[in-house]
Amino acid sequence: MAASLPLEDGSKTTNWLTRKLSSKKSKTSRSSSPIRLTTVTNPNFVSFSDIIRSRRPTEHQSRVPAPTMDDSLVDIAVNASSDVSSLADKSRGTIDFFHTPPTTMPTVRGSHYEDWSTIDWLSDQARDRLRHQIITQQKKESAWKRFLALHDALSGWFCVLLIAINIGIIAAIVDIGAIWLSNIKTGICLPAFYLSREQCCWTASNQTYDKYQHVVCDNWYTWANLIRIENGTTTEYIIDYIAYVFFGLIFATLCAILVKTFAPYACGSGVPEVKTILSGFIIRGYLGVWTLLIKSLGMVLGTSANLLLGKEGPFVHSSCCCGNIFARLFPKYGQNEAKKREILSAAAAAGVSVAFGAPIGGVLFSLEEVSYYFPLKTLWRSFFCAMIASLIVKILSPFENQHLGLFYVGNRYRWFYFEMVPFFLLGVLGGLFGALFIKLNLAWCRIRKKTRLGRYPVLEVILVALVTLLVSYPNPFTRMSMSDLIRRLISSCETEDESLLCNYQRNTTSAYEKNESAKPLYGVWLSVGLLCSALVTQTSLFILTFGIKVPCGLFIPSMTLGAITGRIVGILFETLVYYQPNFFLFAAECSTADEQCVVPGFYAVIGACAFLGGVTRMTVSLVVIMVELTGGLSYSVPLMCAALVSKFVGDALVGEGIYDAHIQLNNYPYLDVKAEFVDQTTAVTVLETKQDKNELIMLPRDSLTVGELINIIHTYKYNGYPVVSSREEASIIGFVLRRDLQLVLEQRAVINVQSNLNTQISFSRITHQSNSIHIYRLLNRSPATITLDTPTTTIIDMCRKLGAQTILVTNEKGHLTGILTKKDIIAYVKQKKMK
Amino acid sequence: MAASLPLEDGSKTTNWLTRKLSSKKSKTSRSSSPIRLTTVTNPNFVSFSDIIRSRRPTEHQSRVPAPTMDDSLVDIAVNASSDVSSLADKSRGTIDFFHTPPTTMPTVRGSHYEDWSTIDWLSDQARDRLRHQIITQQKKESAWKRFLALHDALSGWFCVLLIAINIGIIAAIVDIGAIWLSNIKTGICLPAFYLSREQCCWTASNQTYDKYQHVVCDNWYTWANLIRIENGTTTEYIIDYIAYVFFGLIFATLCAILVKTFAPYACGSGVPEVKTILSGFIIRGYLGVWTLLIKSLGMVLGTSANLLLGKEGPFVHSSCCCGNIFARLFPKYGQNEAKKREILSAAAAAGVSVAFGAPIGGVLFSLEEVSYYFPLKTLWRSFFCAMIASLIVKILSPFENQHLGLFYVGNRYRWFYFEMVPFFLLGVLGGLFGALFIKLNLAWCRIRKKTRLGRYPVLEVILVALVTLLVSYPNPFTRMSMSDLIRRLISSCETEDESLLCNYQRNTTSAYEKNESAKPLYGVWLSVGLLCSALVTQTSLFILTFGIKVPCGLFIPSMTLGAITGRIVGILFETLVYYQPNFFLFAAECSTADEQCVVPGFYAVIGACAFLGGVTRMTVSLVVIMVELTGGLSYSVPLMCAALVSKFVGDALVGEGIYDAHIQLNNYPYLDVKAEFVDQTTAVTVLETKQDKNELIMLPRDSLTVGELINIIHTYKYNGYPVVSSREEASIIGFVLRRDLQLVLEQRAVINVQSNLNTQISFSRITHQSNSIHIYRLLNRSPATITLDTPTTTIIDMCRKLGAQTILVTNEKGHLTGILTKKDIIAYVKQKKMK
Repeated sequence: MAASLPLEDGSKTTNWLTRKLSSKKSKTSRSSSPIRLTTVTNPNFVSFSDIIRSRRPTEHQSRVPAPTMDDSLVDIAVNASSDVSSLADKSRGTIDFFHTPPTTMPTVRGSHYEDWSTIDWLSDQARDRLRHQIITQQKKESAWKRFLALHDALSGWFCVLLIAINIGIIAAIVDIGAIWLSNIKTGICLPAFYLSREQCCWTASNQTYDKYQHVVCDNWYTWANLIRIENGTTTEYIIDYIAYVFFGLIFATLCAILVKTFAPYACGSGVPEVKTILSGFIIRGYLGVWTLLIKSLGMVLGTSANLLLGKEGPFVHSSCCCGNIFARLFPKYGQNEAKKREILSAAAAAGVSVAFGAPIGGVLFSLEEVSYYFPLKTLWRSFFCAMIASLIVKILSPFENQHLGLFYVGNRYRWFYFEMVPFFLLGVLGGLFGALFIKLNLAWCRIRKKTRLGRYPVLEVILVALVTLLVSYPNPFTRMSMSDLIRRLISSCETEDESLLCNYQRNTTSAYEKNESAKPLYGVWLSVGLLCSALVTQTSLFILTFGIKVPCGLFIPSMTLGAITGRIVGILFETLVYYQPNFFLFAAECSTADEQCVVPGFYAVIGACAFLGGVTRMTVSLVVIMVELTGGLSYSVPLMCAALVSKFVGDALVGEGIYDAHIQLNNYPYLDVKAEFVDQTTAVTVLETKQDKNELIMLPRDSLTVGELINIIHTYKYNGYPVVSSREEASIIGFVLRRDLQLVLEQRAVINVQSNLNTQISFSRITHQSNSIHIYRLLNRSPATITLDTPTTTIIDMCRKLGAQTILVTNEKGHLTGILTKKDIIAYVKQKKMK
Repeated sequence: MAASLPLEDGSKTTNWLTRKLSSKKSKTSRSSSPIRLTTVTNPNFVSFSDIIRSRRPTEHQSRVPAPTMDDSLVDIAVNASSDVSSLADKSRGTIDFFHTPPTTMPTVRGSHYEDWSTIDWLSDQARDRLRHQIITQQKKESAWKRFLALHDALSGWFCVLLIAINIGIIAAIVDIGAIWLSNIKTGICLPAFYLSREQCCWTASNQTYDKYQHVVCDNWYTWANLIRIENGTTTEYIIDYIAYVFFGLIFATLCAILVKTFAPYACGSGVPEVKTILSGFIIRGYLGVWTLLIKSLGMVLGTSANLLLGKEGPFVHSSCCCGNIFARLFPKYGQNEAKKREILSAAAAAGVSVAFGAPIGGVLFSLEEVSYYFPLKTLWRSFFCAMIASLIVKILSPFENQHLGLFYVGNRYRWFYFEMVPFFLLGVLGGLFGALFIKLNLAWCRIRKKTRLGRYPVLEVILVALVTLLVSYPNPFTRMSMSDLIRRLISSCETEDESLLCNYQRNTTSAYEKNESAKPLYGVWLSVGLLCSALVTQTSLFILTFGIKVPCGLFIPSMTLGAITGRIVGILFETLVYYQPNFFLFAAECSTADEQCVVPGFYAVIGACAFLGGVTRMTVSLVVIMVELTGGLSYSVPLMCAALVSKFVGDALVGEGIYDAHIQLNNYPYLDVKAEFVDQTTAVTVLETKQDKNELIMLPRDSLTVGELINIIHTYKYNGYPVVSSREEASIIGFVLRRDLQLVLEQRAVINVQSNLNTQISFSRITHQSNSIHIYRLLNRSPATITLDTPTTTIIDMCRKLGAQTILVTNEKGHLTGILTKKDIIAYVKQKKMK
């Protein structure tokens, strides 16, 4: 009988085990975390001991666990496994994944997964199905249970609604805060300091615009004005310059210090990491409350400092933080990493949506760029989330225009087929820019990693900010915020517009005569010169900026540079059309046009699209985002053309977008979901190229002793072990998780099984041996299994599409011959790529 | 040695085999098609015999095939398998899938798959990888090969470009033709008979509009006018009525006869069938040239007859026909069913795009509703295809407005938050309507199938057309085409508009005073009455129409009914606001509005969205299509609200959309890709519930004789057979296709293996037995394998996501214990659903 051996102190056994493991551990691992083999205390986790305890009264009668308990045990059996083969170099905010030896041990506390481990979608989904079944069964019991079931069914919607409302509020605060703080660099609204420049001038009587379309009024005092220095003097210029740099530096420094002190994870764009997390990786704290707070605050400070960074990536990250935080309220999602990723996908869509007011584009961005596993149910929920979020932003920003899009121009511009030529050119430029940017930015990031620079992140931010601010101020186009610049560049020249960019020789009575482009005058050419210099300086700064340790997105900077290029090309083309109206290319179409033939503002839109496409290599989502951003549904064809060309050119030069490049750079364990693999290798090759040729450990079904198991668990710190029929014939019986085995060993006393090191452990369904620990139910009896001849592509698809984490490989005789984990496959793909 | 036995006449052997099979076949099968064991003639298909023939010179030396030949043989080994367990009842245009016993035998001619069989994505993808590898290797050889490689890489783009151009042209012709033919019912343009009414009146001097906004002019003669009957008399009315019915009947009859005679597959919407095809099913001829021609022509005739049918579904079908036809030009797609489906997905997107001018919505429709396997690469290509197609339509329709959207209204309307209440109501109505429509339409389709009605499809069409025409004419709203009606209903009332719908008491100097809704007068209420009667008649007719044997879509009819309801609700709500301006719900918001507060036209848009959502249960794609259709990006929130509510209400009443309902009705072998399965069963249950409990046939690796094989092949007409280690121990060695085995048997003479019925067949890698047929290379050595304990959901996902067609099931000992095909799983899911 299971409990008939002489009594042995269970707790003592546990202690002995702990001691033994501890002492050995210190030799092999660098980690300082103590090994915890404590009892499970989380009420949500049905532990083995709880179950065993509950069956004490009958333990002498039932050798085989009673069916009711079997069912409860399933929760352990299908529990996700934790992958312990990695540790990250968290201290520097980067994850050096493959080059750090395994050091941690799994601790069973609260969550099913360790930090830096991959999740097992299959078992998570199984757990969710079990949950669902239990709820469905209980539904019939009472009205309350029915209500609970309904709540459970709708909890996904509640959750995304909460996320949407929250990220909407955060975005509105960030937007308003950034505008105000950004204005503070140049001056203050004396009647009401909390008003931004624009709002301040609304109430003023003498609102005018300077030649760069900056609003000017009496209520708004520049810092030089405050100390009674007249407008237009050199002293004013110098004092305002100093104030501009001073405030900018303060913002940037504050931002860097906040990030370093409170939330190192808040730095960067966040999109590569979110992608990695969504692909089934655990990074604890990356989507936490502190990250959310600091990232949001950092966005305000960073953009206010006029750094070359945008808010889109950080919004995606913040939004996913919201998603992670609110998912905790709903056990269905909070306690199931696979399900949680559905919520995070929706949150990512909301992030783009609030950044640009582009809900449809946000959903497509999430689908195309960020998400990994995107069931159609998620599509609809993501759309809902994105829509509500952008609605909230719109409601909370009462001073903005009524349109959702950030850079609304409407269907104002018409385009002609001959214009496809310059649009094509812009596409090429975008592709070139993207390739250049990725190459140089990666090179700079590598320098940062390798040299001393990486050790002083705050100093780096300050230096970059200083250079940026010093360079930005003299050029009026770079002095303003990037959003303002884009708005300026994509706008058309109305008749009353007297800014430099719109300095055309023009019939004063009517805006444009039919079929006649206006002659650009001095101001336009000055603008072109300024824009060209801005292009050079901002490109260099952008390369240095993306990657510094503050929250930084790259949509807005890329679009700015694209819009600058686009406007320049547009003006040049406009001039060409003006001076050569009979050139064959446009003579026919321009003569029939009842509007201006070439509108430089529209070229800025196309340029922004092309440059953004070159950097990110987005496709459909890019076009849709641009359409929503500008509100111009009729622009989709030229936008598509530009995106197509820029992606083609970019791909030809550098094979991957900036996000994937950064994933590579940081060695994140990301298995590309988009790439098609075409090699002809099979599992044999993958097994042969495994980086750490681990010994293959198999547990025999019936002839394993406690002592052997302790030894194995301690020596081979794998995620789990396959169980085979016998030591001689390795037919696969199942797979058992290391953590579950640890629990069993630890709980022997509690289970009331008196055991010594020679006690047998049996994985059989029915055992005829007395005095054995019987753990059939802990077995996952359907591990993913392939043969040595299975094509690598199929294995990759099993990981990508089915979400398998551990795959057993059998030989021709059907015997176990190797184990492949998701990480092995990622490593193989990476190695293959390097060649 | 393999060829050392006494010579036997090979051809005679083949004949004998054929004879034997033929004689036996007639007893067991009902099919009249002769069994063909002919030599493979398709040059693209590397047959076993070709390869064997090529190695003749060395056959005496090499028992094991030389490596070079092995590689060529892979093409057979990885060839897709054909599923022969089904036959369809083609004669009646429906596919009765599960209830017909297997009768056909696979013939190896041209394609890899039989009609009505499911494809094996895994092996098709393997073939594509092989192709890709060969091309990549050859690339280095010469510039020409490099060019070929580039052509191959770009062939997907060329193919979708061709498709886009073609479907664009077809759509333009259909559109123009349908308008002209539709106008012919009411009259003719005497100066130029080929002009439609609108075009005809453009050149006329006295163009006016009647009270239903029909254009009236001198050039346009009604049929009564032609025989010199004055306008406005009763005689004119009667004669025009008769002409209207007469022409309509002719169109409808012609349409039905054409469909019945030339392309029975051209009937219906086509979307359920396209969905089934995209899920990996072969229906030969469904996407052929004749179907394309007749479907396109049928669309023109059907809509001209004023039948309650739209063009969206047929356009999707036509577009997929184009896809299928053009894919033949590119071997990469034409000869690989899995790859071809990528092209078809893109074509489906183009179909919706040309139907509505909604490229983004088309892509999302394809993604959400139609496609099965949709890699992200396809997304971009689909977008390109959809965009180009809609551009072509726009270019070729010079008389249309410059916007892509079919029902362009732009961002003209503003909406207020309180209006969410009526929008919500419209959502509920849409859900109710959808449920009602699906229920009644299905019931009617079942009646049609079961009763005599189904035997006279042409008569049915004529009857439906007659009723439709008789009912339509008296009501001016139904007399016009549905597109015109929708355009009318969603438009706002401009000041100069004097039609019945816009009969408001209004300040003649300004359109609307601020914050004041106008008082509806008699004309409005008459319109409401007419619209109500139209709603009743058209709904009844719609239920009867969808399913008749002409090309019929349901987008436009659903939207029409929705727009009618929306306009009615809008007018009622507008009146409420007019008479109760201080009601708490809208007092606050309406008083601040500087425009008209409630615009009935906008309610028509929302109503159209809600009704379409209720019928199809589309989600994101619905909203995006509506946004693109109307050009109103700012409407996305109310549209989403209506779609959300109508889907929720609809799902609560009838669990599935009309497309899925029709897939169910017709018993198509479609494995729902959207549904989440939550049951806890495992492979055991699926095996137990298999409908036809087939005997499990296994081929032993080494101890099979030719006689036994012939017997097995003849008796058990499965797709293929598993090969196991021995008769006693069923360890899985691999899977071999029946068709390949047939080839081997047939080609024995060609191979020059002299064999009799006792000759051994060996699947071993190295055989030491002389005088045996050695076919190791034909084995698929990595069949998808699961254990009895594998969850059903995982099995379903293996079919859905990996595309597995045949899955082997092993027991605890690792021995083969059952086989599951995709069809078994579909049957299981269906059975599960029924419960």
